[in-house]
Amino acid sequence: MRDQYYEQLDAIVDDLVTLTGTVRRAVADATKALLEADAHVAESVIAGDKDIDEATEMIEERTLLLLATQQPVATDLRQLVATLRMLTDLQRMGDLSVHVAKVARRRMPDSAVPINLHPTIISMAAVADSMIDSASRIVANRDVAAAAKLENEDDEMDRLRLDLFRTLLSDGWPHGVEPAIDLALLGRYYERIGDHAVSMARRVVYLVTGQLT
Amino acid sequence: MRDQYYEQLDAIVDDLVTLTGTVRRAVADATKALLEADAHVAESVIAGDKDIDEATEMIEERTLLLLATQQPVATDLRQLVATLRMLTDLQRMGDLSVHVAKVARRRMPDSAVPINLHPTIISMAAVADSMIDSASRIVANRDVAAAAKLENEDDEMDRLRLDLFRTLLSDGWPHGVEPAIDLALLGRYYERIGDHAVSMARRVVYLVTGQLT
Repeated sequence: MRDQYYEQLDAIVDDLVTLTGTVRRAVADATKALLEADAHVAESVIAGDKDIDEATEMIEERTLLLLATQQPVATDLRQLVATLRMLTDLQRMGDLSVHVAKVARRRMPDSAVPINLHPTIISMAAVADSMIDSASRIVANRDVAAAAKLENEDDEMDRLRLDLFRTLLSDGWPHGVEPAIDLALLGRYYERIGDHAVSMARRVVYLVTGQLT
Repeated sequence: MRDQYYEQLDAIVDDLVTLTGTVRRAVADATKALLEADAHVAESVIAGDKDIDEATEMIEERTLLLLATQQPVATDLRQLVATLRMLTDLQRMGDLSVHVAKVARRRMPDSAVPINLHPTIISMAAVADSMIDSASRIVANRDVAAAAKLENEDDEMDRLRLDLFRTLLSDGWPHGVEPAIDLALLGRYYERIGDHAVSMARRVVYLVTGQLT
């Protein structure tokens, strides 16, 4: 009976890691849609969000069932509660990738990102990708040391967003209001994706060390 | 023993309602700081976020303690899990009011909102205020019928945000890129505050009816 319980607990962690991989791909695809103005990829990100929502709800249901039937205490209880929180983060990251894809779709056949800002968006997307990957490893291996790296990446994301805003607000900005608004929102979306990765990592750190960072 | 448990459960709901009131005030104050370019009010919103975070963590700890020690099942379990989710919503709404206050602070001594857009921001803030108030009542009284009104208000918020964006992107927009970016972000912040109120209400509806809306 207890063995089966720990199997179920492990299965939930596995599914959480798998879902994190799905969300990571959604973010990467949304970036591709954005930079290459690829309508097909944009639509697949928008349609795929349903799958992320369904996976989230399925894991949530199983977590609640385990809470109700096994009545775990101490660390096991905290782990299940942390799982529920991380599911909220993942669902939100999925929503944010849809927001990116919708900005991409709105400007097609053009790219919503002027060519001189491609490097900035590529950097933000690369940092976001690495942050989600780190979060996934932290969840899978309870690798608390890796959480420090994630906080550094979050600082890098803040710097990139600041750079982006400086460009948008510089006297030489030649593209007008609409692309500036798109880019300001895009900067915010990538930043929030990174924030949710940090939030996931902090949940694990709290689980392992009992310390809120 | 069980009586004490139900007392604790009720106390958590009371504290959740009180915290919702605090968050509601933070949003209203942030709007005041924004429209009146009031530095004192802006600073108080920014400093006050610490109190919201602390209150959130305190209620969270007590909820976890109740989960661990009383091992509730069925509805009681779902209520405690819903409480944890709603705390995440409230904390986030607090963060968003800080974002509004920081936009206000950045443009002082001017208002970040051009005078012709004051009515739009006033309307968005009024809808957000009413939505938080509705969410609070729904939490306090499990008034599921009121949730439908909240969804209507959410539609109204979407319409206001769309109007705002149309104004920013119209040919006659005379204020340049920087105020446009501020207003696009502000529109997004108020919209997200409303979303979190809807999310709180949905948690209660799910609790009462078992239906995810």
